[in-house]
Amino acid sequence: MSLVTVGTVAFDTIETPYGKAERVVGGACTYISIAASYFTKDINLVSVIGDDFPDAELKYLKKRGVNLEGLDIKEGQKSFFWAGKYHDNMNQRDTLDTQLNVLADFNPKLPASYKDSKYLMLGNLTPDVQMSVIKQMKKRPKLVVMDTMNFWMDIAMPSLKKVIKKVDVLTINDEEARQLSGEYSLVTAAKVIQKMGPSFLVIKKGEHGALLFHGEKMFYAPAMPLAQVFDPTGAGDTFAGGFIGYLAKTDNISWENMKRAIIYGSAMASFCVEEFSINRLKTLKAAEIKKRVKAFANLVKFDPKL
Amino acid sequence: MSLVTVGTVAFDTIETPYGKAERVVGGACTYISIAASYFTKDINLVSVIGDDFPDAELKYLKKRGVNLEGLDIKEGQKSFFWAGKYHDNMNQRDTLDTQLNVLADFNPKLPASYKDSKYLMLGNLTPDVQMSVIKQMKKRPKLVVMDTMNFWMDIAMPSLKKVIKKVDVLTINDEEARQLSGEYSLVTAAKVIQKMGPSFLVIKKGEHGALLFHGEKMFYAPAMPLAQVFDPTGAGDTFAGGFIGYLAKTDNISWENMKRAIIYGSAMASFCVEEFSINRLKTLKAAEIKKRVKAFANLVKFDPKL
Repeated sequence: MSLVTVGTVAFDTIETPYGKAERVVGGACTYISIAASYFTKDINLVSVIGDDFPDAELKYLKKRGVNLEGLDIKEGQKSFFWAGKYHDNMNQRDTLDTQLNVLADFNPKLPASYKDSKYLMLGNLTPDVQMSVIKQMKKRPKLVVMDTMNFWMDIAMPSLKKVIKKVDVLTINDEEARQLSGEYSLVTAAKVIQKMGPSFLVIKKGEHGALLFHGEKMFYAPAMPLAQVFDPTGAGDTFAGGFIGYLAKTDNISWENMKRAIIYGSAMASFCVEEFSINRLKTLKAAEIKKRVKAFANLVKFDPKL
Repeated sequence: MSLVTVGTVAFDTIETPYGKAERVVGGACTYISIAASYFTKDINLVSVIGDDFPDAELKYLKKRGVNLEGLDIKEGQKSFFWAGKYHDNMNQRDTLDTQLNVLADFNPKLPASYKDSKYLMLGNLTPDVQMSVIKQMKKRPKLVVMDTMNFWMDIAMPSLKKVIKKVDVLTINDEEARQLSGEYSLVTAAKVIQKMGPSFLVIKKGEHGALLFHGEKMFYAPAMPLAQVFDPTGAGDTFAGGFIGYLAKTDNISWENMKRAIIYGSAMASFCVEEFSINRLKTLKAAEIKKRVKAFANLVKFDPKL
């Protein structure tokens, strides 16, 4: 099924305990779209870049089935840039530099061909931009998934809450769930946040996995313990891309399929962190995904013998 | 099957965001023995207390099937005392007071009737005391499980490593696994630690669950997300007690049964934290345990449809 993905397409400079990568391809929408492209080929990207973005990377996205009609290329301007450093604990990072560039006045215009897509993935961006995309859809998509971060909670909580009200699935991390709800317990936080609008809440816990909440239902997806997390940049976006890509492919938003989608998202994220930037995603094979999903199933499998 | 449990029987003063409990019953061996008593009635406790320990509590232990022949009661002396404070993040705590008292020169003497027990649970204690208990067993038990903590890694690493060499299962938390192995990745840490002796390693991650490693095999047991963690004191010991109690009951140390035992341990721990001290364990019913284990199974259940 058709999927609209919104977010940044950008450059990152990343330092981890294992090395440094200068001005490599990054951006939420890049990771989301590539991850989703392993499941569906009807992906409509909405983003903005400067004229400094390599043609080869745009060609790669097109080759993966990503429609770039909604990609605004600003002549004479620069793409969004982020630089960050990770320490041993990859769940935390320091931002060293942020250059908004083209993102400063990003005002997305959805191509007509995008407007009746059934699935919408709002990557982490200004809440106002996320809202503008929702409003431009001809009819309400079957499923709207939204990612956001503490930064918007700090500086734009009222606008953020307006968008949250309009989405079906919100994906945030545990600290953000606590900040948004004012509750320490994630179970209680999930109840509070579901009352704000989204009937599904995904709480991402990095190396500790992810929780999916829906009404009284709860699902715990582990993270795959890895011998080496090389670069966690984009893991959350890759998770979101795998999640919505799998849902768009199967066109099934039942609880059982949502759980599967969380595992597919987790599997995609577990590949993403194996190399810098989108490098691992570029070489990924469908058979590897299948094998990794099987490994997730084995990881938690036990027979309670009740 | 017969089980020997070693560790402290003590008093705790506990402060959590939900209240304060003064001089309540605590101690690793108390939690371990009570948790195990839900699975097996052949429990042989080894510990030391002063003459200040309430008779009613000893009677309760006996009623649960715990043999107190190995409990050394020192006339005119005081029981071990610990005071601690938890903040919102219950995975961390401040120690406010530690009074060793009778524990200062604890030199356990195993009653003859204990010495051919098939299962041995070494609760967190001085490595030398743990070693002394191993040496007093007439023959090597079928399974030796050992709990320890960073404190012994800081001040007694050589003695600690000697005990670790002799056990089958080591239970420690993630930070301790990193400290003991010198490796940040838990997968790599598990490989290093298994080479030190124990062929099974349990890494406890508090609210993030637990990992079981054995050779190349891995199992991820979630923690049950709870609306309220009232008091985490004793959760790790209760986990260990449920784990070894279930193994002793089933007398089966296969990988599949070990995984089940981890879940039973996690279920017991999830009850322990619902009230102060051993209060929740005291009112627990077998049917509730069964229901909680079922909830754990549901929490991670998904059909990969591969």
